[in-house]
Amino acid sequence: MAETSPPLKDELDIVIPTIRNLDFLEMWRPYFEPYHLIIVQDGDPSKTIKVPSGFDYELYNRNDINKLLGPRASCISFKDSACRCFGYMVSKKKYIFTIDDDCFVANDPSGKQINALEQHIKNLLCPSTPLFFNTLYDPFREGADFVRGYPFSLREGVPTAISHGLWLNIPDYDAPTQLVKPLERNTRYVDTVLTIPKGTLFPMCGMNLAFDRDLIGPAMYFGLMGDGQPIGRYDDMWAGWCCKVVCDHLGLGIKTGLPYIFHSKASNPFVNLRKEYKGIFWQEDIIPFFQNLVLPKECTTVQKCYIEMSKQVKDKLSKLDPYFDKLADAMVTWIEAWDQLNPATAS
Amino acid sequence: MAETSPPLKDELDIVIPTIRNLDFLEMWRPYFEPYHLIIVQDGDPSKTIKVPSGFDYELYNRNDINKLLGPRASCISFKDSACRCFGYMVSKKKYIFTIDDDCFVANDPSGKQINALEQHIKNLLCPSTPLFFNTLYDPFREGADFVRGYPFSLREGVPTAISHGLWLNIPDYDAPTQLVKPLERNTRYVDTVLTIPKGTLFPMCGMNLAFDRDLIGPAMYFGLMGDGQPIGRYDDMWAGWCCKVVCDHLGLGIKTGLPYIFHSKASNPFVNLRKEYKGIFWQEDIIPFFQNLVLPKECTTVQKCYIEMSKQVKDKLSKLDPYFDKLADAMVTWIEAWDQLNPATAS
Repeated sequence: MAETSPPLKDELDIVIPTIRNLDFLEMWRPYFEPYHLIIVQDGDPSKTIKVPSGFDYELYNRNDINKLLGPRASCISFKDSACRCFGYMVSKKKYIFTIDDDCFVANDPSGKQINALEQHIKNLLCPSTPLFFNTLYDPFREGADFVRGYPFSLREGVPTAISHGLWLNIPDYDAPTQLVKPLERNTRYVDTVLTIPKGTLFPMCGMNLAFDRDLIGPAMYFGLMGDGQPIGRYDDMWAGWCCKVVCDHLGLGIKTGLPYIFHSKASNPFVNLRKEYKGIFWQEDIIPFFQNLVLPKECTTVQKCYIEMSKQVKDKLSKLDPYFDKLADAMVTWIEAWDQLNPATAS
Repeated sequence: MAETSPPLKDELDIVIPTIRNLDFLEMWRPYFEPYHLIIVQDGDPSKTIKVPSGFDYELYNRNDINKLLGPRASCISFKDSACRCFGYMVSKKKYIFTIDDDCFVANDPSGKQINALEQHIKNLLCPSTPLFFNTLYDPFREGADFVRGYPFSLREGVPTAISHGLWLNIPDYDAPTQLVKPLERNTRYVDTVLTIPKGTLFPMCGMNLAFDRDLIGPAMYFGLMGDGQPIGRYDDMWAGWCCKVVCDHLGLGIKTGLPYIFHSKASNPFVNLRKEYKGIFWQEDIIPFFQNLVLPKECTTVQKCYIEMSKQVKDKLSKLDPYFDKLADAMVTWIEAWDQLNPATAS
C-alpha cells in the first residue's frame, strides 16, 4: 500500500528563526519531519545550533547571510527574529510556513492534537472572500457556504496569499497589556477561519504564519529591527500592513483564525516595552498612512507595489523619524536582494 | 433577598412578526417573559393569534397599522415578514430584539441552553471596533483584549448599533443553495463575536437581530416586499446594506456572531426562488451601489442619511427596475411615519 504523501511536501519550506537548540521540533516531528526546514540562526554565528536528528534542513547564520547578499545583507535585521525573512528569500518553494521556537502543538477542545501546518495549507489552497463579509465565515469550509444575500458574482473569491494562525495560552499582547494583565491566558478556541475584508488593516503576527511566496513573497519583508535600530517587535506588523495593502491592490486574500499553536512562554514585558515604545507612538501615524496609501494602476507586480510603497514611506513617514528614511532604503535593498536570489521572478 | 432584574428589562422590546399562534414562545418563556413583546400580525387581520399566557404584549394587525399610519401605511409590507419593521417604529424603547417564530433556544457545545437575548444585550452594551481588525475577535470579551500592533487611539471603539446573531441547524441560505444542498445543517458553534469592519458590507439576516433604536432605528426599514411587490426575502438584506452605510458614516458599529438560535425549519426553496430571483439579479447592481455610496457631511442624523440615501436609490437604481422608484418613495414615507410616531427624535 502506498503511503499518502503529506500535502505540498515538495512545495513548502518551514522557516524558523532561532538562537538556541531546536528541541521544540521533537513535539512537531510527526507534522514537520516530511518537510524541508530553513533555519535562520540569529546572534553569534560561532554558536552551534543543535537540530534533532531526522529533520531535513539548511541553516544560515549571519556569516552565511553576509556572504550570500554582500552589502545588501544590511536589509536583514540582526539580533531580532525579523531575520527570519532571509529564509523567505532564500527558499525556492512556492509556500512558506514560519513558526517561533517557543510554539508547541496545541490541542483542540476534544483534546486532539492540531496539525497546524495542514490547516494552513487548507487555508492557502482555497479562495478568500475579501469583497463582502460572509456571516457563516469561510464559505469554502465543509458544512458552510455563502449565505442568502451574498452576491453570486463574488462567490469565486480571490486567491489566498496569506494564512494567519492564532495562539492558545500566551496571547500576542503588547508590553503595556502584558504589564496590566500578566496572568491572562487565551483559552478560547474559536473554530473559524475568515477573510480580512478589503480595505481593513490587521495586526499580523509572525509566530504562526503561512503564505504563498509566488503571490506575495517580495512584500513579506520584516523590516529593520533589533541591533542598531530604534525599534523591535514591529517586524511582523510592518510586513502585515505592507502585505495587506499589496493584497488589496492586487486582488489577493488574507485569512485569519485557525490553526492554533500553543504559545508556551510570555516574553519579558519590560524588555518588550523598551523595544516597542517608539512603535507605540509611531503606529498612530503609520496606520493612517497605510489606510490612505493608494498604489497606482501601473503597479502590477508585488515588486512594483513594494518599490512604490518604499517611495511613499520616504515621502510621508520620514518626518516622523529618520529611521523611516533608512527603512525606505532597506525596502529597496530587500527587493534587489530578493531579485538577486530569485532571478526567474525578478521585477 | 431581592431578585436580580433582567438586563434592560424596561428598555427593550421584543418584536415578532407572525401569521400563527405563538406556541414557540413556550420554549423562550424563561428568557422572554420579563420583557414586553410587540407582535406584528401579518396576513388576514380577522384571524386570532394565540399568545401563551403570562406574556406582556401588544399586537398590531393590518387594520391597526392602517389606522395608526393612514396613507403612510403603504410603506409597511403586507404578507411578508418585512412587516416587522412596523414594530420597530411603534416601540418606545431604546433597544429592539427581533426573532422569527420558527427559531428556538439553541444549546452551546456543553449542552447548556443559550440565552440569546442576554448575549445580544452584551453585544450592544460594549463598543465595536470597525476601524482596525482585532485577530482575537471582540477585545472587550472576558479573557480577550487588543493584540500587539492595535493602535491605542482606536481602543475606545465606537458605540454598537446592531448585534447580528446566527443560527444553528438550518442555515440562512438562498433558494439556489437550498436546492443544491437540501441536507446541509449548520452544526458548527463558532464561539466569537466580531465587528464588521468599516467599508465592508454584509448580509444581515432578520431572524435573530438586536439593535439600538436611538442610534440606528430610522434606518432599520425592511423595504417593500411580499403582496403587490416583485420581490421577497430581501427585506433584511436591504435594511442591512442601508444600516451598514449609515453606521459607517456616523461612526457606529455592527457586531456579528454569537448568540446562536436554533432555526427549526427550512422554508420551501421553490417558493423562495420565486420570491428571490429578481433580487439575485438586482443585488449584482445594488451591492456596488452601496459600496460606492457616499453620504455628505451634512447628513448628521440617521434620518438625514436615510433621506439622502432614498434620493440616490431613485437616481441610480431606478434604471434597474421601476420598483426602485417606488422603494425610494417608500423610504421617504417610512421616515415621515417614523417621525410621526416618534416626534421627540424627529428629523
